[in-house]
Amino acid sequence: MVMRKLKIGLLGCGTVGRGLVELVGRNQGLIQQRSGVELRITQILVRDLNKERPGVDRTLLTANPDKVLNNGCDMVVELVGGIQPAKSFIERSLAGGKHVVTANKALLALDGFRLMKAAEAQKVRLGFEGSVCGGIPIIRALRAGLVGNSIQKLSGILNGTCNYILTRMTEDRVDFEEALREAQAKGFAEADPTLDVDGHDAAQKLKILAELAFGAELGPDAVQVEGIRDIAADDVEAAREFGFVIKHVATAEFSDDSVSLNCGPVLLAQSHQLASIRDENNAVLVRGDAVGEMLFSGKGAGSLPSASAVLSDVVDIACHKGGFSVSSGGQVDAATRDCRSSFYLRFTVADPSAIGPITTILERNRIGVARAAALWARSDSGKHQVRLLTHSSSKHAVEASLRDVAAAGLEKGKSVFLRVAD
Amino acid sequence: MVMRKLKIGLLGCGTVGRGLVELVGRNQGLIQQRSGVELRITQILVRDLNKERPGVDRTLLTANPDKVLNNGCDMVVELVGGIQPAKSFIERSLAGGKHVVTANKALLALDGFRLMKAAEAQKVRLGFEGSVCGGIPIIRALRAGLVGNSIQKLSGILNGTCNYILTRMTEDRVDFEEALREAQAKGFAEADPTLDVDGHDAAQKLKILAELAFGAELGPDAVQVEGIRDIAADDVEAAREFGFVIKHVATAEFSDDSVSLNCGPVLLAQSHQLASIRDENNAVLVRGDAVGEMLFSGKGAGSLPSASAVLSDVVDIACHKGGFSVSSGGQVDAATRDCRSSFYLRFTVADPSAIGPITTILERNRIGVARAAALWARSDSGKHQVRLLTHSSSKHAVEASLRDVAAAGLEKGKSVFLRVAD
Repeated sequence: MVMRKLKIGLLGCGTVGRGLVELVGRNQGLIQQRSGVELRITQILVRDLNKERPGVDRTLLTANPDKVLNNGCDMVVELVGGIQPAKSFIERSLAGGKHVVTANKALLALDGFRLMKAAEAQKVRLGFEGSVCGGIPIIRALRAGLVGNSIQKLSGILNGTCNYILTRMTEDRVDFEEALREAQAKGFAEADPTLDVDGHDAAQKLKILAELAFGAELGPDAVQVEGIRDIAADDVEAAREFGFVIKHVATAEFSDDSVSLNCGPVLLAQSHQLASIRDENNAVLVRGDAVGEMLFSGKGAGSLPSASAVLSDVVDIACHKGGFSVSSGGQVDAATRDCRSSFYLRFTVADPSAIGPITTILERNRIGVARAAALWARSDSGKHQVRLLTHSSSKHAVEASLRDVAAAGLEKGKSVFLRVAD
Repeated sequence: MVMRKLKIGLLGCGTVGRGLVELVGRNQGLIQQRSGVELRITQILVRDLNKERPGVDRTLLTANPDKVLNNGCDMVVELVGGIQPAKSFIERSLAGGKHVVTANKALLALDGFRLMKAAEAQKVRLGFEGSVCGGIPIIRALRAGLVGNSIQKLSGILNGTCNYILTRMTEDRVDFEEALREAQAKGFAEADPTLDVDGHDAAQKLKILAELAFGAELGPDAVQVEGIRDIAADDVEAAREFGFVIKHVATAEFSDDSVSLNCGPVLLAQSHQLASIRDENNAVLVRGDAVGEMLFSGKGAGSLPSASAVLSDVVDIACHKGGFSVSSGGQVDAATRDCRSSFYLRFTVADPSAIGPITTILERNRIGVARAAALWARSDSGKHQVRLLTHSSSKHAVEASLRDVAAAGLEKGKSVFLRVAD
């Protein structure tokens, strides 16, 4: 076997960067055997030269990006994150004819389609397996494994923090705040969990996957995003009684030349393939016209899983330098049209007998009620509940009903409605 | 985008071949958009020129292999199956500097490692995604997606026929014969189901996956194979009572420089990731040192899923002509060493009180009994049962105990023992 050397300029040495250095060191021999490529990290851009970085050769460090970008490396690996200066680093590298590998989810969600076009124009490759779902090779599956399929739908559990919190709420019957504290204590949630629990992280990943799957550029507000802060322990309990679990699910569906992208909490039947994905794990379900439904699941984040994904791009590009193409499907509008589904509704009411007028309002809006229950408050808060599961109904009709219930003065707190997934 | 043309010589036009023709026709435009490659099937080898083949252009057919192999195509797709003449077709193509894509499981299990070496020596590529688990891109995951990982273990449900039969036995509480008849009626089992239900099909797939994952050639008898003919409705029922389901699972594990490969029915905890894989579906669990545990599941067979896998190789090779390497780990012996596990045992006995001497024999062989039950026969067959679940025990000790029970004349029928998976 002819052994080739590959010089890598590494930008950033945070969690994933250190994971990459560790993994290249640990599995160097194996990678050479498998690919015939000898990997060498020749320079590493960092902000603070003096910070402690166990296992990283200090002589490779520099605080000057030009030293990495101009040093004659074969490939640039961008792991600094954020929009700038990461974007200009990538653009300079592509313009200079260098292959780029990145795990920068925020940047790709914002500008991925244009960066892919730029790489294509330069006949170099842009790898970004590490940007979505850590070690799960879902980008590769969409780009290569399912290349002969027309993708009809993809849905997934794309945020480990939300999934960890909802798993704890389901299995330990704790409320959102307590589950969040536990996630933070275990390192599965940030001190400021906004990006994760409000759904924005999952929405970014969904946009990257959907642009690849459907071969079209999507606008910045293409994804309808909801988080999980409003899910109460009561909702989890009610879902269980109805035979469901609540999960934060991102869904992209292609039909009638438009794409609908949703990201938020939904009820899944307990037998649904995504219902059994526990804790901080991620999973993606893809439906292609030839393969049918396919599930990929595993660890969606973490130093070594993400580094493994970055490394797979590095080796793949080193072995096969031909460019991947970007579909030229052009810009597609995201649909904000109505959808039909069963829904779970929870109303906080001053009087449980409100179940009567509430079901009347639903019927007036052509919403069939499959199951309904009025529950007396355990404490003397006076906050009783009405919980319902509807037959398949229009989402617009459900929203109209919520407005009608509010206008009728029946509520004594915020109402909640969640879609029941197919 | 520069559009390249790729001329494909197709050998064989059976189920998968016709699926390939259909899929290339249906998704041609999409594939061009995604890859910049225009696929053209230029000639098709068939045995019988006059057979009805809806959707296939008759002018492409030939019964003379030389016409395909010498016609100046860029790539040969081998879908004739079996060992010969498929092997010589592939060898001739590789020797002639042509890339080859095949879905020939039997041939790859027998000679895959040498064929990969031959392709490497010729600097051409040999794709075989279609040989294992239909549309699930598991070969690509092992070759590329997890290239930076040392693979520690892989296990999977690799045979759809076995899984369909066991699912029916579990969910509909029917016996093996009835489930097999249903599988045959639905096209999930052949008229002669031997290859599937006796485990040989799964064993071939396991060998292909293990050679890739561990980068070593394995001998022809490397896999210990068991089928599912001996599983009775009683065993499925007993497993359920103990909190398990019975699945036909193939497992490859690497430790202490040896590989152990097993393929047979095991008990899985109901919460196990493979326990929820139903009907004719396939699934593979891979454990890598960086990514942790990862699951891939989907349709493991069928015309379009397998054609999708073949097509992914065709496009990948067309885009990236560099060669994949074969690890040079050399030949590795398959371990036939003892293993420790919990076991499920079923004895058919003339007298239920045999539970006493049987547990005594087990204890003498240092096997701890976790649960035991003696069951009177429902009919007057006189065939009563003793069922046991052991604590973690040596497999050799269990086998010795079975011999001791037989020698003690306690049995009135064949005894069954199954491993309980971790």
